[in-house]
Amino acid sequence: MYKREIRIIGIDDSPFKKFTKGNILIIGTIFRGGTLLDGVLTTKVGIDGNNSTSKLIEMINKSKFKVQLRCILLNGIALGGFNVIDIKELNRKTRIPVIVVIRKYPDFKKIEETLKKINKQHKYKLIQKAGPVEKVGKIYIQRKGVSLEKAKQILKLTCTRSLIPEPIRVAHLIAGGIITGESKGKA
Amino acid sequence: MYKREIRIIGIDDSPFKKFTKGNILIIGTIFRGGTLLDGVLTTKVGIDGNNSTSKLIEMINKSKFKVQLRCILLNGIALGGFNVIDIKELNRKTRIPVIVVIRKYPDFKKIEETLKKINKQHKYKLIQKAGPVEKVGKIYIQRKGVSLEKAKQILKLTCTRSLIPEPIRVAHLIAGGIITGESKGKA
Repeated sequence: MYKREIRIIGIDDSPFKKFTKGNILIIGTIFRGGTLLDGVLTTKVGIDGNNSTSKLIEMINKSKFKVQLRCILLNGIALGGFNVIDIKELNRKTRIPVIVVIRKYPDFKKIEETLKKINKQHKYKLIQKAGPVEKVGKIYIQRKGVSLEKAKQILKLTCTRSLIPEPIRVAHLIAGGIITGESKGKA
Repeated sequence: MYKREIRIIGIDDSPFKKFTKGNILIIGTIFRGGTLLDGVLTTKVGIDGNNSTSKLIEMINKSKFKVQLRCILLNGIALGGFNVIDIKELNRKTRIPVIVVIRKYPDFKKIEETLKKINKQHKYKLIQKAGPVEKVGKIYIQRKGVSLEKAKQILKLTCTRSLIPEPIRVAHLIAGGIITGESKGKA
């Protein structure tokens, strides 16, 4: 059983125009349990690029919060469009369990087709490598380094305000506010 | 008596090097009561400039959260060094009560001397115009458009995690994280 005050990082990217180039801002919120924001980390990744895994590993490993972190929560398996995260590598290089939170069951066929169309079919392997998509309550997850039972406990502790864990909801609000001047919509 | 779910905006600026020029990022966090972040607003003001009042009025008045806001909480009376806020004007143009939160009792003599030294003594009037500095618990406030009694209620509802109201504490964490990559220290 996890302590109520478990330290977790929730990660989301910022809004951007599809099919543009450049870097986008990534927000990591450090939470103590499901309500208390303890810190904010940031990095940048390339739109549709290949550096999201290394950028997240760097951001987390150099943080003063690192030693306390018990879980990394991702809002989907990619940042900045198709900059797909290798969650096995992220788990291995940080030694922190990773949970990918997914609102709707992914349309894998469509994702594969889109990746083929933009000549990035190799990225589909990373999505498959992330393991089965499991239903937990009304959302879905993929996970590395943590049992389904423990992942459920973490979601129960952090989904305090909506279907989505609070660290991801808040990362989404911050990212939107910074880029557009006012945060919008749901994580 | 205010409702526990009262909507409040907390405002803080981001770290910058003293005596540099340019604009700095301002973060506004919209809170429901003392724990729930509902939204994030941003704007920019000039370091040691004169536009903080107009920029805050614009940021707040164009926000979708505006109609619900019951209080503006400021972390000190200036943003970006000596870009002093005219809280009477801020209150008049937004029609929202304003509370300036101050950690330590200000050294007014030193402030006046510094403003003279940098040839900005006219700004001292704005600080005087903001009214008396009142002690509330372990911190100090200045206020416009709200009674001392009601200001105390708002502080009681929002100082849930530290001496400083939660909307300001979180605005400070976000501003630090965005600018330096990792948030540091207290608001």
